[in-house]
Amino acid sequence: MEFEIKHKDIAARIGQLEINGKKIETPALMPVFNPNKPIIPIKELKKDFNVDILMANAYSILKNDDLREKIQDRGIHKFFGFDGVIATDSGSYQLMVYGGVDTTNEEILRFQEEIGSDIGSFLDIPSLPDTYKPRAVEQLDLTLERAKEAKNAKFLVNAGIQGAKYLDLRKKAAEELEKDFDMLAIGGIVKLMEEYRFSELASIIATIKQNASTSKIIHAFGLGHPMIFSLGIALGCDLFDSAAYALYAQEKRYITTNGTIKLEKLEYLPCSCPVCSTYGTELKKLYGDDLTRELAKHNLYACVEELNVIKQAIKEGSLWELLQVRSRAHPNLISGLDQLLKYGKWLAKLDPITKKSAFYFGGEESRYRTEVLNAKKRLKRVSSDRMINISPFGKVPAEIADIYPFGSVMVPERLKGDDFVNPKHAVRI
Amino acid sequence: MEFEIKHKDIAARIGQLEINGKKIETPALMPVFNPNKPIIPIKELKKDFNVDILMANAYSILKNDDLREKIQDRGIHKFFGFDGVIATDSGSYQLMVYGGVDTTNEEILRFQEEIGSDIGSFLDIPSLPDTYKPRAVEQLDLTLERAKEAKNAKFLVNAGIQGAKYLDLRKKAAEELEKDFDMLAIGGIVKLMEEYRFSELASIIATIKQNASTSKIIHAFGLGHPMIFSLGIALGCDLFDSAAYALYAQEKRYITTNGTIKLEKLEYLPCSCPVCSTYGTELKKLYGDDLTRELAKHNLYACVEELNVIKQAIKEGSLWELLQVRSRAHPNLISGLDQLLKYGKWLAKLDPITKKSAFYFGGEESRYRTEVLNAKKRLKRVSSDRMINISPFGKVPAEIADIYPFGSVMVPERLKGDDFVNPKHAVRI
Repeated sequence: MEFEIKHKDIAARIGQLEINGKKIETPALMPVFNPNKPIIPIKELKKDFNVDILMANAYSILKNDDLREKIQDRGIHKFFGFDGVIATDSGSYQLMVYGGVDTTNEEILRFQEEIGSDIGSFLDIPSLPDTYKPRAVEQLDLTLERAKEAKNAKFLVNAGIQGAKYLDLRKKAAEELEKDFDMLAIGGIVKLMEEYRFSELASIIATIKQNASTSKIIHAFGLGHPMIFSLGIALGCDLFDSAAYALYAQEKRYITTNGTIKLEKLEYLPCSCPVCSTYGTELKKLYGDDLTRELAKHNLYACVEELNVIKQAIKEGSLWELLQVRSRAHPNLISGLDQLLKYGKWLAKLDPITKKSAFYFGGEESRYRTEVLNAKKRLKRVSSDRMINISPFGKVPAEIADIYPFGSVMVPERLKGDDFVNPKHAVRI
Repeated sequence: MEFEIKHKDIAARIGQLEINGKKIETPALMPVFNPNKPIIPIKELKKDFNVDILMANAYSILKNDDLREKIQDRGIHKFFGFDGVIATDSGSYQLMVYGGVDTTNEEILRFQEEIGSDIGSFLDIPSLPDTYKPRAVEQLDLTLERAKEAKNAKFLVNAGIQGAKYLDLRKKAAEELEKDFDMLAIGGIVKLMEEYRFSELASIIATIKQNASTSKIIHAFGLGHPMIFSLGIALGCDLFDSAAYALYAQEKRYITTNGTIKLEKLEYLPCSCPVCSTYGTELKKLYGDDLTRELAKHNLYACVEELNVIKQAIKEGSLWELLQVRSRAHPNLISGLDQLLKYGKWLAKLDPITKKSAFYFGGEESRYRTEVLNAKKRLKRVSSDRMINISPFGKVPAEIADIYPFGSVMVPERLKGDDFVNPKHAVRI
């Protein structure tokens, strides 16, 4: 496994991950593919969505005699007809939902080796976010024990980090697991996503990132909704997986970057993906498997599009601008962004020192952006006879007022006045 | 001509416009079609973009002998192969750009009747926004004179409102023209759009809307960029036209709802329209007419998508939420939104009294939303022994704290505390 970081913005990075000779670019989304019930066929995933990494559930395969035999026989890549990267899950989701699974850590690890998973998982014990703490401790301890058994696995181990909402447990898990593993999976967070608890989600991601080397690949397990991608990526997540695109489709829920809408409530389709452009509101008239498939495709297009938006922003150095826009889709996303700011000192160290893009003031959060923290720090070391006030930076020597980032700030008129005396602020495009 | 309003939000409305037996839904975008150089053929405009209203330049047709004769002969609908609504422009754009045109008001009016335009224009005199005021007065006076000659035109007259950036002139023009015409076209605003002067743009639109009956159809002439659609529509614009989708394509500029990017700067296509999904970044390798056509299609998809997003928001009653999101794309859009708030009292009267959607707090502007103004007004008439503070509404009788809009408010955590004591604010989805 090799991982090379190509571009950075805040704690986000565009990277190239090489596994078993196969290269994928991160941040990446792994659509969950269910061979028992394929909703979008592999061919279409490859052709229409350029999928080069996907996820499947090794436990479901293990428990289906027919499927297991065929996949044991031919290997998972040949059976799927997919030569990209295949990550498998161990059944820990089933463990959480049903309270138990009919396998052992040893068995599921061996099985994943046997079928040829590129990335595999040990049987970690997911804790629900609000699990009683002593129980979360127990579950984490068992998880860490099971992790040890996976040390010598033949695949890249996607090491599950548990700890519920308790940051000290998340920290402990990250510290332990980063010693032995190159890929860390933040587990037990789907409920936080579903309940819009974005502030807690941000803390958990930040805690894990802070306690693991930047060379580790971070997988936000189950975080399959595009409304949260930008926040997750800004905090350093590299991999997402999505069963949501298909599950939401089964529930007739239409995914957008700004949230989820019940299909029946849509009078207009707010999207121009091939599905929405082809069907228009006629989409609502499909039913059964046809509806599920087409809606799943739309949902996946929405995810892929948002990843491209984010990668373009990282490349431009405008991820902060994107966060400011995206966070207005829901008050809890603003809270999530505010929570990110509490980790500002750490993030400022990771953030590139210069950026090519402008600094758009979008709201209170802009005052605490990493660029502001970095500039204030550097300003401590300079002085001049002629200091001018450039909000949100404070007193700036006039001589450097038009260089980055001071000269790049653009503020809405509501903030102009005494506090914003730099004539550059009146710049128009 | 009939115009029926079906749904409202702020000053926006979804309406049905019937002209010559042809029905179109507003807000609508009229792509500009140039028969001298068709970039997207009519067939594709109809099939792929559901275009049922388009715009063409009658002056260019008049000045091209070959084209003129053919169109005079067959009529513009048959010649174009388009049975939807055709609006024609009079050459006033050429007048502005080249300082003069080789026709008269009378001739261009008669010509538009002759070729069968459904909607036509008199030869108004566009003033640039910063035109010296006495000159703008002269230009407006001439425009109003020419309007008189169009009173009995056989087509629906798209009455051009001029007045540069001077609101008193815009008011006078609206008052005069709304007496005789059902469709008012806000002219001379393209430069404001191009220069991101969204605050001035908002004032001009609001001034005209305030001084014309709500039954008038408002056309924002040349406002063809989707980043400004939501603001324009929230202020009551019903029709947009776009030459921009093709002009920008010729300049290799890629339109998004959040702004424009030079195609060469895109490392990822932040869109999943059929063009972007098909080509991916290979789009950049096209050249000449192929590139222009495909990029024009993408640009038009971006426009159509945004109109659908906005119409869905109007239907849901969540246009404020959309404005809060969209305005973060550029500080000048925030300024535009702030400018809209200055017309809050007037907008509050137009805004529906109840809405089905939640009230998301997105920033300072949310404190002055029409729903807040309306609620505060109604609160003056109620009292109770038990008043609780629900920001941004102020003291609210506890008995009604969970009804609309008080119970619908969701704020980011940064605003919770003393000022936000309603437990409903902690509601999670």
